[in-house]
Amino acid sequence: MNLTGNLLIGARDVGATAGTMQALNPATNLKLAPDFAFGALDEVDRAAQLADEAFDSYNNTSLAVRAGFLERIAEGLDANAPALAQRAALETGLPAAQLEAEAAKAAIQFRQFAAVVRQGRFRQATIDPAQPGRQPRPRMDHRMQKIGLGPIAIFGASNFPISYSVAGGDTASALAAGCPVILKAHNAHPGASEIMGRIIQQAVKDAGLHEGVFSLLRGDGVAIGEALVDHPLIKGVTFTGSETGGMALYRRAQQRPDPIPVFTEMTSVNPTFVLPIALFERGGEIGDGFAERMLVNVGQACLKPAILLAIDGLGYSQLKQAMIARVSAMQARTMLTPGINHAYLRNVERQLAAGAEEIAAGATPAGEWDGQSFLFEVDGARLLEEPALLEEVFGPAALLVRVKDDEQLVAIARRFRGQLSATMHIERADHVLAARLLPILERRTGRIVINAFAHPQEVSYASIHGGPFPATSDSRFTSVGMSAIERFLRPVCYQGFPDELLPEALQHDNPLGLWRLTDGDLSKA
Amino acid sequence: MNLTGNLLIGARDVGATAGTMQALNPATNLKLAPDFAFGALDEVDRAAQLADEAFDSYNNTSLAVRAGFLERIAEGLDANAPALAQRAALETGLPAAQLEAEAAKAAIQFRQFAAVVRQGRFRQATIDPAQPGRQPRPRMDHRMQKIGLGPIAIFGASNFPISYSVAGGDTASALAAGCPVILKAHNAHPGASEIMGRIIQQAVKDAGLHEGVFSLLRGDGVAIGEALVDHPLIKGVTFTGSETGGMALYRRAQQRPDPIPVFTEMTSVNPTFVLPIALFERGGEIGDGFAERMLVNVGQACLKPAILLAIDGLGYSQLKQAMIARVSAMQARTMLTPGINHAYLRNVERQLAAGAEEIAAGATPAGEWDGQSFLFEVDGARLLEEPALLEEVFGPAALLVRVKDDEQLVAIARRFRGQLSATMHIERADHVLAARLLPILERRTGRIVINAFAHPQEVSYASIHGGPFPATSDSRFTSVGMSAIERFLRPVCYQGFPDELLPEALQHDNPLGLWRLTDGDLSKA
Repeated sequence: MNLTGNLLIGARDVGATAGTMQALNPATNLKLAPDFAFGALDEVDRAAQLADEAFDSYNNTSLAVRAGFLERIAEGLDANAPALAQRAALETGLPAAQLEAEAAKAAIQFRQFAAVVRQGRFRQATIDPAQPGRQPRPRMDHRMQKIGLGPIAIFGASNFPISYSVAGGDTASALAAGCPVILKAHNAHPGASEIMGRIIQQAVKDAGLHEGVFSLLRGDGVAIGEALVDHPLIKGVTFTGSETGGMALYRRAQQRPDPIPVFTEMTSVNPTFVLPIALFERGGEIGDGFAERMLVNVGQACLKPAILLAIDGLGYSQLKQAMIARVSAMQARTMLTPGINHAYLRNVERQLAAGAEEIAAGATPAGEWDGQSFLFEVDGARLLEEPALLEEVFGPAALLVRVKDDEQLVAIARRFRGQLSATMHIERADHVLAARLLPILERRTGRIVINAFAHPQEVSYASIHGGPFPATSDSRFTSVGMSAIERFLRPVCYQGFPDELLPEALQHDNPLGLWRLTDGDLSKA
Repeated sequence: MNLTGNLLIGARDVGATAGTMQALNPATNLKLAPDFAFGALDEVDRAAQLADEAFDSYNNTSLAVRAGFLERIAEGLDANAPALAQRAALETGLPAAQLEAEAAKAAIQFRQFAAVVRQGRFRQATIDPAQPGRQPRPRMDHRMQKIGLGPIAIFGASNFPISYSVAGGDTASALAAGCPVILKAHNAHPGASEIMGRIIQQAVKDAGLHEGVFSLLRGDGVAIGEALVDHPLIKGVTFTGSETGGMALYRRAQQRPDPIPVFTEMTSVNPTFVLPIALFERGGEIGDGFAERMLVNVGQACLKPAILLAIDGLGYSQLKQAMIARVSAMQARTMLTPGINHAYLRNVERQLAAGAEEIAAGATPAGEWDGQSFLFEVDGARLLEEPALLEEVFGPAALLVRVKDDEQLVAIARRFRGQLSATMHIERADHVLAARLLPILERRTGRIVINAFAHPQEVSYASIHGGPFPATSDSRFTSVGMSAIERFLRPVCYQGFPDELLPEALQHDNPLGLWRLTDGDLSKA
């Protein structure tokens, strides 16, 4: 696929209207061809108008047509996976093999949402039949289904340049819901973004859909993003990135004359609790596994386990030594962008200033933006005095907390803000303490893992990638897993409708063969 | 039940800490005994602390215990219905018979949510079993259920002093979800609020629950409400009332350091479209039915049909005459509060200033706050020029729009902001035009009604009382109907758990006999 650097506004290629940029290879510090176009407010407006025009027809596609469209995107991702991974590797410094796996995962995700569409359960078809004889007054026929929310603006993430970017789960789930998508591409990987954008644009064409179903924009600074969030035809926003960036968009959208839902996935330290018997039985193994995971993707992952808490006792020194060994042996590797590298170094300083002690460091950096790995340790008592130690350090650093006893462990657990995940390492004899921690973790996290590491994230029906603030801006939703679609759906009730005016999902003889809730009972009748 | 005027903070009665008020009988303009206590910020904090303390145990009640608690509230409402209706009638000027029916409906609603709890489907139990042999890497066991969001602040509405107030659907659905409730009582009916509050307080005690599950506050001005919305232990808010009041709370909550979900149900004109053949066949009947509904509750209802659109032609004059006849014959009746009466008169003036013509008026008021009924008429062309005519007039007034043709009808339909409901009156020969209007209405309303009037609202599985802004602040939810519970639930994923640490809903042998989604398939296995 030839890269043009153009914006994709519906079916059209649009050249630069507000300057250009070049991608940067963070490993070599060299610019990459071609020039990539920046758009201006006119492009935002044009894309939003097209998305609005596309909504009625796209929202009313049959389940088969919509699923087929998502499968075409999956096929395009498979066909272009090597080229996509290669370009993404150049733009991010991440290994090409890892990015090929990410492309494969992205394709699978589109197929999974195609399956969700074919199942049709997302419509939540619900029927309360008429009760003409009910006293004191008859009940009319009521039927409910969920439809798409409207055009959605999606901000691509930087750290997983395929599966959380243009062809990521936000796009897959919004399109599955029946919502046109306007993608604000991340400037850290414009070429990979263009490849994915063209795959989706081509699938829109091949499926015979309205061109406004998908557009890809790029802009200098924050103006394009703000204009998208402000645009009256945009009905929802998703964002994956920093708390600062996410909250700026979130608060902006809530100040619109008509506020719209914004789902931001932001920050999480994914605390790991090692309970005493597990520590005793396999402290070294846990320390090694934790340190391995914390270093994946140069620590640039929302699910990076960043804080490990263990009660000082038998097994603690084995755990600590295993962590030190792996971190010390770690090569410094290129971070995604200079900005992320600078923030990482600042946050490492913050941890030291807050009283964390450096107990291991990886090899010193060779490249300008290589991230050196660090392991810190702190006492539980000190942690309770310094809430700053509980904040995220995005990059290859982690904090080992030497906890005094059960009570201190519980007290620290209560201090965590909202998290995407938390992990407990336990043996049978740890269950009593685990049961005590469980309600504390339930209130603070979207996912609780036992005896494993939270990364990588499973994409399935039960998987949740969400959690209380600041992990996300709305703990009622998830950005990964099949229920991610719920962010983009709203219910409509049809009362007293003749069959021929009802949507297919609600017609009397259930032509789609859906599971439906009838008077409170589930059936396919 | 003796009224004390106290606040209810958990199990305690708390007297005035910030002054007192008396209820007003709007029909006689006389004060009613006793004095009602206002609370201050200490009471907000105390109630929030108690709710937070109650959360873990209440959120973990068995389905049977929680359902039994909701049924106790229903029994209390039934037992106190006459006294409650009598007091509410004194405080609102609404007929006692209507209020007894409202109390019965409120009790039914608690029983319906008890049924929802017993069914347990709200947990949305989802299981993706381990796949140890999966390539390229094994899948762990993932299980998901929904739990309560946390303590919820509920602002009682003024217009339905029972079923949208202390014992309304917001309270029933939040308690069903496992969330403690702090109720900010509306000052227009403090005595009715106290009766309902004591019923719930007693049910908390009788069910052996933590006292913090329910508190009832009252305050002077907006300080108490703002403090509730700001309190860090409050995790969600609901409000039913004006757009101004609702949006002030909404925006305030979004400016918290940790924004929380706020569901506000605010304003709707519930447009009625009378299509040509229906107009020809039964214009008079439709005009009469519409006018009857618009006058229910002295027009003080969120589902009041306020705007009727019909294409000028055969049947139009019959429709118009029928509306005129009923409105002209209407007695002026007491409105809920002096403030609502004043706003009504201002909005009537606004309609006249915007070019609406008064074509009928009810009897002139005798009482100081009696609301006189009005019917206005305007041309479709004028309406398109004056968006102010599309705004709500809360009270017994409506607008008849004389539309030129199909195109103008469609153009006007596109101008409406978000609505709770829209209605079409149609015959078989109107289906083509109805099908054209349908996607326009789907995007703008939470409920579409054919050949009936939207009021009163059904409480059932398929019923939706929601809609795009400004009908509500989040079109993805409803405040009436069984799915109202979804506002107060968030998912938690349990990964790799031993059975004995899993919540009951997710245990391997399905001890609760729930419908569960296993690898994407629904079953009770």
